[in-house]
Amino acid sequence: PSDGNSKISSVYINNTHGGDDDDFYDKNLALFEEEMDTRPKVSSLLNRLANYTNLTQGAREHEEAENIGEKKKAGKSPQMGTFMGVYLPCLQNIFGVILFLRLTWVVGNAGVLQGLCIVFICCCCTLLTAISMSAIATNGVVPAGGAYFMISRSLGPEFGGAVGLCFYLGTTFAGAMYILGAIEILLMYIAPKAAIFESKHPDGEGAAMLNNMRVYGSVCLLLMSLLVFVGVKYVNKLASIFLACVIVSIVSIYVGALVSAFKPPSFSLAPALLEKTTYIWEQFCQGPEVNASCDEYFLSNNFSRINAIPGLASGIISENLWSSYLSRGDVVEKRSLSSSRDAQPASIEQPYVFADVTTSFTLLVGIFFPSVTGIMVGFNWSGDLKDAHVSLFLSAVHPDLTSVVLFGACIDGVALRDKFGDSVNGQLVVGTLAWPSPWVIVIGSFFSTCGAGLQSLTGAPRLLQAIAKDNIIPFLRVFGHGKANGEPTWALLLTALIAELGILIASLDLVAPILTMFFLMCYLFVNLACGLQTLLRSPNWRPRFSYYHWTLSFLGMTICLALMFISSWYYAIAAMVIAGMIYKYIEYHGAEKEWGDGIRGLSLSAARYALLRLEEGPPHTKNWRPQVLVLLKLDEDAHVKSPRLLTFASQLKAGKGLTIVGTVVSGNFLQSYGEALAAEQTLKHLMDKERVKGFCQCIVAQKPREGISHMIQSSGLGGMKPNTVVMGWPHAWRQSEDPQAWKTFINTVRVTTAAHLALLVPKNISLFPSNSEPCAEGYIDVWWIVHDGGMLMLLPFLLRQHKVWRKCGMRIFTVAQMEDNSIQMKKDLATFLYHLRIEAEVEVVEMVGFWKPSLHLFFSYFLPHARRRT
Amino acid sequence: PSDGNSKISSVYINNTHGGDDDDFYDKNLALFEEEMDTRPKVSSLLNRLANYTNLTQGAREHEEAENIGEKKKAGKSPQMGTFMGVYLPCLQNIFGVILFLRLTWVVGNAGVLQGLCIVFICCCCTLLTAISMSAIATNGVVPAGGAYFMISRSLGPEFGGAVGLCFYLGTTFAGAMYILGAIEILLMYIAPKAAIFESKHPDGEGAAMLNNMRVYGSVCLLLMSLLVFVGVKYVNKLASIFLACVIVSIVSIYVGALVSAFKPPSFSLAPALLEKTTYIWEQFCQGPEVNASCDEYFLSNNFSRINAIPGLASGIISENLWSSYLSRGDVVEKRSLSSSRDAQPASIEQPYVFADVTTSFTLLVGIFFPSVTGIMVGFNWSGDLKDAHVSLFLSAVHPDLTSVVLFGACIDGVALRDKFGDSVNGQLVVGTLAWPSPWVIVIGSFFSTCGAGLQSLTGAPRLLQAIAKDNIIPFLRVFGHGKANGEPTWALLLTALIAELGILIASLDLVAPILTMFFLMCYLFVNLACGLQTLLRSPNWRPRFSYYHWTLSFLGMTICLALMFISSWYYAIAAMVIAGMIYKYIEYHGAEKEWGDGIRGLSLSAARYALLRLEEGPPHTKNWRPQVLVLLKLDEDAHVKSPRLLTFASQLKAGKGLTIVGTVVSGNFLQSYGEALAAEQTLKHLMDKERVKGFCQCIVAQKPREGISHMIQSSGLGGMKPNTVVMGWPHAWRQSEDPQAWKTFINTVRVTTAAHLALLVPKNISLFPSNSEPCAEGYIDVWWIVHDGGMLMLLPFLLRQHKVWRKCGMRIFTVAQMEDNSIQMKKDLATFLYHLRIEAEVEVVEMVGFWKPSLHLFFSYFLPHARRRT
Repeated sequence: PSDGNSKISSVYINNTHGGDDDDFYDKNLALFEEEMDTRPKVSSLLNRLANYTNLTQGAREHEEAENIGEKKKAGKSPQMGTFMGVYLPCLQNIFGVILFLRLTWVVGNAGVLQGLCIVFICCCCTLLTAISMSAIATNGVVPAGGAYFMISRSLGPEFGGAVGLCFYLGTTFAGAMYILGAIEILLMYIAPKAAIFESKHPDGEGAAMLNNMRVYGSVCLLLMSLLVFVGVKYVNKLASIFLACVIVSIVSIYVGALVSAFKPPSFSLAPALLEKTTYIWEQFCQGPEVNASCDEYFLSNNFSRINAIPGLASGIISENLWSSYLSRGDVVEKRSLSSSRDAQPASIEQPYVFADVTTSFTLLVGIFFPSVTGIMVGFNWSGDLKDAHVSLFLSAVHPDLTSVVLFGACIDGVALRDKFGDSVNGQLVVGTLAWPSPWVIVIGSFFSTCGAGLQSLTGAPRLLQAIAKDNIIPFLRVFGHGKANGEPTWALLLTALIAELGILIASLDLVAPILTMFFLMCYLFVNLACGLQTLLRSPNWRPRFSYYHWTLSFLGMTICLALMFISSWYYAIAAMVIAGMIYKYIEYHGAEKEWGDGIRGLSLSAARYALLRLEEGPPHTKNWRPQVLVLLKLDEDAHVKSPRLLTFASQLKAGKGLTIVGTVVSGNFLQSYGEALAAEQTLKHLMDKERVKGFCQCIVAQKPREGISHMIQSSGLGGMKPNTVVMGWPHAWRQSEDPQAWKTFINTVRVTTAAHLALLVPKNISLFPSNSEPCAEGYIDVWWIVHDGGMLMLLPFLLRQHKVWRKCGMRIFTVAQMEDNSIQMKKDLATFLYHLRIEAEVEVVEMVGFWKPSLHLFFSYFLPHARRRT
Repeated sequence: PSDGNSKISSVYINNTHGGDDDDFYDKNLALFEEEMDTRPKVSSLLNRLANYTNLTQGAREHEEAENIGEKKKAGKSPQMGTFMGVYLPCLQNIFGVILFLRLTWVVGNAGVLQGLCIVFICCCCTLLTAISMSAIATNGVVPAGGAYFMISRSLGPEFGGAVGLCFYLGTTFAGAMYILGAIEILLMYIAPKAAIFESKHPDGEGAAMLNNMRVYGSVCLLLMSLLVFVGVKYVNKLASIFLACVIVSIVSIYVGALVSAFKPPSFSLAPALLEKTTYIWEQFCQGPEVNASCDEYFLSNNFSRINAIPGLASGIISENLWSSYLSRGDVVEKRSLSSSRDAQPASIEQPYVFADVTTSFTLLVGIFFPSVTGIMVGFNWSGDLKDAHVSLFLSAVHPDLTSVVLFGACIDGVALRDKFGDSVNGQLVVGTLAWPSPWVIVIGSFFSTCGAGLQSLTGAPRLLQAIAKDNIIPFLRVFGHGKANGEPTWALLLTALIAELGILIASLDLVAPILTMFFLMCYLFVNLACGLQTLLRSPNWRPRFSYYHWTLSFLGMTICLALMFISSWYYAIAAMVIAGMIYKYIEYHGAEKEWGDGIRGLSLSAARYALLRLEEGPPHTKNWRPQVLVLLKLDEDAHVKSPRLLTFASQLKAGKGLTIVGTVVSGNFLQSYGEALAAEQTLKHLMDKERVKGFCQCIVAQKPREGISHMIQSSGLGGMKPNTVVMGWPHAWRQSEDPQAWKTFINTVRVTTAAHLALLVPKNISLFPSNSEPCAEGYIDVWWIVHDGGMLMLLPFLLRQHKVWRKCGMRIFTVAQMEDNSIQMKKDLATFLYHLRIEAEVEVVEMVGFWKPSLHLFFSYFLPHARRRT
């Protein structure tokens, strides 16, 4: 009985090994003097309990999977502070590629207000998710496995696997995005000469650039994968260097913004209106003469040369306050100096700046979002944190604040409406804010982006390995294996291949929304997990972090969902379909894992709600359906006496409705508990064999008669009580020496009748067809002698829904007496059947004298009798 | 026991009156000779059964509501054929306003192919709905109440009410649409001079027209309402005249199409290219001279005069094959003679024809759909049909075929890209197809439209009255009353008011999508009802019409949903919100009706699925939550002895999880059945009072001890088995003369332990706080002596989730012995609690000598003890 005992009592400590049970439960505390020697004392038990690691189940295996990852942490103190453990890793992710390469452009297109709005929405989403995540993380010791472990352990393996893979894909695509960003910085700012493909026609410039990205990106990915493969420790050493670069760049941006406010760069500030003879003139006309042939768009507009960095004091913020979304191919122009309406279209042959992407608010949200996805990084380290729940919350909130502050630093430059604003004047506009030199930020962002890419390529295979080791997705099993040193080689290979897909897309603006989707899916489920557990009030849900609320979680979930559909509804649907397919796959083919998920609580609530709903009103006759209690008898060897009864019951219900299979074991409950369990197993085994979905019940009773009576009275719950009892015909009662058998039968009949249940007593049940041998022909005969409201006609109808009985006809016999008009009776019966919408042959048997049915007939008037061909 | 008996056995015949029970069930058939006198014979019962009307419940009341409608049917044979009963009424609805006024325009804009596609989609939708509807209609006698009765009787009052009201609103708006159509015909074709408002500026023409429609429409509505009010019989007499008009018009269209193919109308066929000095010239120029100042658009394009009806042979079909959607304000032009691209915009001052609505495929679907909504009409007559299921299916399919055929007749004319194509050449283009005269179809369509409007105004109030009489929507009760002759006066008034709303919208193209939505909602639910019942395999679901399938129903449902969102997603959402609000209103405030709805079957399936899902895996300790079996004792007067036990259990669960309240009545089941029912009622009453949602169980046992044992073993179902037993402390055992009481208690304890359930025995339960008097302060003390895995700490935590215990602190006492380090023990206990994430004060009680807890302590170590202020 130790098994059951631990099931009940160990509500806290999750035993991964059965062996622990003995220590904790069998040898419980000493309660009486004579137990002093054998059982532990309060103080010693307390001591052990306090040192118990109390990791959630599965986290241990994960720890083993992560054993190679320990090297990474080895250099650091196992008790890292919030700053080193959470703030810096997050920072590196946030100040990544999107911020350096796209934030100025986002602000330029969306304007300061809508730009703030984008940042605000994204931060709301991550903040709310962070709150939910903090709650989940502080509900028990935080396993050092990040979001995947949190979700899989609180929503179950199906959701966990689906979301884990989404998170993996997101991280992998993030790696691709970082690499693309690094290449973009390289080709745009550091070494534009390095481009392999160059287009002579301006139309093809974009395509050539993409091809350059593809080639360089693939090379870069290969190098990085090799680096990760050869040695993670080098990666981790590089990480701190990269981090330093990032910090320097950021400081440089802040200083630059301040400097430019007080002392704007030395370009002439006055717009040189109508300087047709100057530098600009030479760009657009055939010669320096006034009457030289010029570009038409140039002629019909006033061109002027303006300063790229007007400084904070120049009113640039108010100019950029409102949005100005451009369509692909529109000419980029300064708002206060816009072109005339009637102008000729600009020629793509001339060095005008065209918008290369059609922008909109929703698109920009999708592109910006990856820069706030850093919050998960802190959670990956959470196992090593000193005061996890404070740190984790800080880790969640701080990036948001940082984004907002950095946003402030970005709006004071010229807002770029083209991503590569430099093509106009050859200046590195994106970098000019920085002080002392634009190169600080260019180099800094390059290294930071490389570092983030490396981190993604290091992290993603480990995540995949962790999922594979959990063994919930069979086809991923191969990725659980690693090199001799535990390095996940195959997982790295797969990661590199998927990242290569992202690189072949080549455009940062197309890859970003993909990972946005996957991250948002992940956040959505974190919020769902938190909200659900709060609402279901699972007793196990006691987070130490107490500032969560289910409304916040569901708000976060809604924002995630909205962001998914706002930024790109087809990607959103695709991500959901992918997650859904993984979910279904795990449900059907996955190994069964029981991690105590919240979904089970949901099932419980659903079952309870549905049952209570069923109880509300009185049942209506129209809704009558057989809810069967099958009473089976076990013989001395614990074999079921007439298993065909169960077959019959399952045929009757055609797989729908309630089936309870019950048996009564005679004996004393305290002694026969094991026997009862065995009987239950036998019944369950039989039910599996006969493919009956239902419940089984086994009662140990001193008097079987009483046991059956009580089972009929009490089985079922609420609206799911049986309304029909199926039991076998007592064949042996004439021969039996035991008068009890017959008594039990009669008593059951009386109890069933008293409880107003229907009773089916099939005689010669062993001759009934089994599921494997359908009746090819024959009839089900009904002797309609007692009017029971139609039950007798309904049962054959139900039987005929099952494939075994489908080919059987149905005949209804009734008995006419001398004085009856048998033709009229036949007609009446046919009309009655027509109203019942049941097809059957009608036969009227004429009888001479009054017919005295015996009790025997009374029970067997329902005769599913299949005549075989033999 | 007759009550229960009828519950089981009357699976077919729905008894509206309890009185019927006696006849059918109590006095069942004679089975033995001695019963011959008192019980009916087989033949006589059969005779009665055959004549039994077998109407579904509620249909009778409806029949009474419809008693005035009988007049309508009085003239016809009660056994109408398919043609008169189904085909003609449908035809009148289909050949209504949309077909005459809009189909040519739809074809002109969408082109022949997309036009066919629109018709095909709409017909698919109605065809599939018709199949579902035929199945529902032939499942039992068809009540003569149409879709509302079908849905409310198969999906329950909530859905039925919501959909019924939607259908009512749809019919009412259809009335408005017909009136608007009639006025449009009047003002456009018959008497354009009758317009009251006229705009001098061409810009205001549309607005003036709308105002005309409003005025005339309101007048027309008033007249029609009066007509309906004064006498429905006149309406019905008019109906046949209208029908004749329709048939003549349609024949006229077919003949006209044929005639025009062989002998096109006599206008000159050659396009008079560049006839600048002719009629056209005069329209657009100041004078007839060649150098007169002309409209610029006119000058920059080639104008030509073409024939309105080129006839089938002219290749017009191939020219109109593809779609050409116009935006509002575009100039309407013939495709083969389109204007030059660089032309100046046309001036609205000149008599060009502009598109007045921006069209798109989806918009046209919404506008066309009402013309296929006639299928329900046949169902309204279904009660009077001879061979209902054949007729009904025909009624459903035929309109589809008819639409397609008529569509063929429409594409051979000039496809009009402006609805009022006549404004170009003053011809009644829409009518010119007809033979011998356009006026046949103009007049015909006018009368047909008026007739359809009258029918809507007659039908809608009756539908509202039927819903009101069902009394499922309390605030509609007033509309159930009628005039002395049963005419629903108030319902007519409301209908007229709602229709007036539609008329104030004034534009046919805006009203049509509204009723499209409401009809589609209705169709959707018809399909849902059929699909659901097929899938749930309700035994009552035995339609005589056998060509249905659940995939077809769900396909139909999907098409309905898609059409709703395709034609206008905001209307779709609005319609759904309206239906949802009605649903919720009925759920909360509606009278309880039990019509045996399919939703109950759904609840049953859901409960079964959830329970089976719960059974799948072994329960995880993390998921442990109290599932309580409360054992209550009833005293001699059938009062519960300690009701506070239930309060305590409900506080423990904080409203979540399973509660089963059980009691054992001693006695023989056959005799004590009534007593058991009374006990169950008492328990239910107490549960209501204490607001405990749960299930109650009552077992009659000869030995209460056995009964309790069996209840503990068998209560619950699958995953919803109790894991905790709550029972009262046997206070009186010392005084009690009955040794049985103490024995029963001990036995229950032993059984509970053997079944591995937790046992809670609160002592002095009557001193525990009730729900109305929360503890203001105090402590819950736990004596942690036996290590039980944390259960002892969890229970107070759960209690404190309830508002009554929220303000109580929690203290944990443990016992240190002489040799223990009590400081270390306290620290260890605190650490243990920290891991458990439970806040509590820790106290270590030092004790000299070994402490011998008595059994008494063993049971009461869990002491929720609230110290009051007193």
